[in-house]
Amino acid sequence: MQAVFCENKRLTLCENYPDPIPEQDEALVRVTLAGICATDLEIAKGYVPRFSGVLGHEFVGVVEAAEDKSWIGKRVVASINIGCRSCSYCLHDEPEHCPNRRALGIHNKDGVFAECITLPLRNLLEVPDSISDEQAVFTEPLAAALRIREQVKIRPSQKTAVIGPGRLGLLVAQVLQLAGGDVTVLGRRLESLALPASWGMATGLTTDFANSSFDLVVEVTGNNAGFKQALRLVRPLGTIVLKSTFSDKNNLDMTKVVVDEITVVGSRCGPFAPALRLLARNGVHTEPLIDADYPLSDGLAALEYAARPGVLKVFIRP
Amino acid sequence: MQAVFCENKRLTLCENYPDPIPEQDEALVRVTLAGICATDLEIAKGYVPRFSGVLGHEFVGVVEAAEDKSWIGKRVVASINIGCRSCSYCLHDEPEHCPNRRALGIHNKDGVFAECITLPLRNLLEVPDSISDEQAVFTEPLAAALRIREQVKIRPSQKTAVIGPGRLGLLVAQVLQLAGGDVTVLGRRLESLALPASWGMATGLTTDFANSSFDLVVEVTGNNAGFKQALRLVRPLGTIVLKSTFSDKNNLDMTKVVVDEITVVGSRCGPFAPALRLLARNGVHTEPLIDADYPLSDGLAALEYAARPGVLKVFIRP
Repeated sequence: MQAVFCENKRLTLCENYPDPIPEQDEALVRVTLAGICATDLEIAKGYVPRFSGVLGHEFVGVVEAAEDKSWIGKRVVASINIGCRSCSYCLHDEPEHCPNRRALGIHNKDGVFAECITLPLRNLLEVPDSISDEQAVFTEPLAAALRIREQVKIRPSQKTAVIGPGRLGLLVAQVLQLAGGDVTVLGRRLESLALPASWGMATGLTTDFANSSFDLVVEVTGNNAGFKQALRLVRPLGTIVLKSTFSDKNNLDMTKVVVDEITVVGSRCGPFAPALRLLARNGVHTEPLIDADYPLSDGLAALEYAARPGVLKVFIRP
Repeated sequence: MQAVFCENKRLTLCENYPDPIPEQDEALVRVTLAGICATDLEIAKGYVPRFSGVLGHEFVGVVEAAEDKSWIGKRVVASINIGCRSCSYCLHDEPEHCPNRRALGIHNKDGVFAECITLPLRNLLEVPDSISDEQAVFTEPLAAALRIREQVKIRPSQKTAVIGPGRLGLLVAQVLQLAGGDVTVLGRRLESLALPASWGMATGLTTDFANSSFDLVVEVTGNNAGFKQALRLVRPLGTIVLKSTFSDKNNLDMTKVVVDEITVVGSRCGPFAPALRLLARNGVHTEPLIDADYPLSDGLAALEYAARPGVLKVFIRP
């Protein structure tokens, strides 16, 4: 089958990648549509240097084969972490922290920029008919955005900033606003703020805001400069949620964290079922986040395009 | 009067420092005994570069003059932050986060390595007779240790590590154990662990513990290496409390904070009244933490001695 293969920071479009063979508890799923996320781009740059396999983890597809025949033909999305099922994390239903986990398109498991994938049945969720493929492919990043609401309280009287109006940041801003937050979306360029402003959200240039302007700051920029701005913008006793990984390790001043008693919360994967419920009731804008739609045969061009500044969601369609 | 004066990273023992004159709401307090803390040593090194004044903030003393005469002759300790009384932090009784605060011996207010100080009456707390001067001088660092218990839940089933068996770390370990925590004190040298081991505490070399060994890690080392060890030792979904400031800003890898969804909590000044209650019922060991007792006339030698590795609490006695 066709697949975008990643090895040693090199991406290749393979024409004859071996068809995946389901393990005992797994389904074979034909990918209908996949989405590119910042993590894919980081992996391609070497952020997870040891990953060798098919890239991609945001998708919607149709089950082609499964031991439980009732799944066949169903349209599905899937949580991306595959735990060992026996460690304390797995026993507490937290496979995303299993020390022996595999992760779709990220660690020891071929991903979705391909014609077919295999996944354990327990990872699959059926997509209701009311949700289109183009919406369903947002389930994974929307779940990641919802994760913040599992971790920190969003209070209506609390001034909240989301730094980074990118593909994930704009989902984060929406789910925090839905939770009743007083949300301002911050960016480095006015153009990037036009979309959230068109939704009636408060927006502004990050540098226009004074120190200590916000109670809660969510950092979704993917760079070290974003964390520095978050530290500057959060008030004493406030909270920073770190949503993006970044490789630059220098000049991070933790003194302010201590002196101002800031809480910093790392945030990664989130719950799929609430994300599907939110999509089913058209609770978030996803259509305006779609930037481009490439066939799988142009997968490398799709990834190159997605890496450009300001580009939102790019689809890869097998 | 005699005083240890700090200016531009230079310490001087002044023989004729001007006697302090109380402002309207202030008391004049004669210092009986003062303690040296890591912050004093950091200030002397230039950590708060703009501080120019008398150093020191841990003390016990006797009120010599006050508008409210009932205070005169009372033995007191005092919280060290002096707020503006009108900002939102001050109105919420959080003067330690007032943006215009002064702080005793730290920022815009002469400190306690001197014969006398002045402080607002609202900062003073009377010391019960059952507490000796040598215990009372630990009120401020003990309050700072108790602050952690105001910020994070200490659960009996949670494995907790305190990295850094120094003058503050050993108070932190005690108050977490008193709160029912399963506490292990970690250090770089076996000698530094003898004291907590003699109190029946679990101890160990930091490097002897595997990654992800603890649910809660309190970092009290005062150096960048301590934060790195905290990141290594905390488990996914765990919490790190940062108790010490450090100036090295390099090679802090925040990726693990995101991937493992760690919570990092900065922690500074704490509540004095509970600290006094704890001292009154002999709830913590303080006597074994006393390393040396210098007269104020030898204040510079006291600070030099306190800066040596492994030295615990050093007193300065006017």
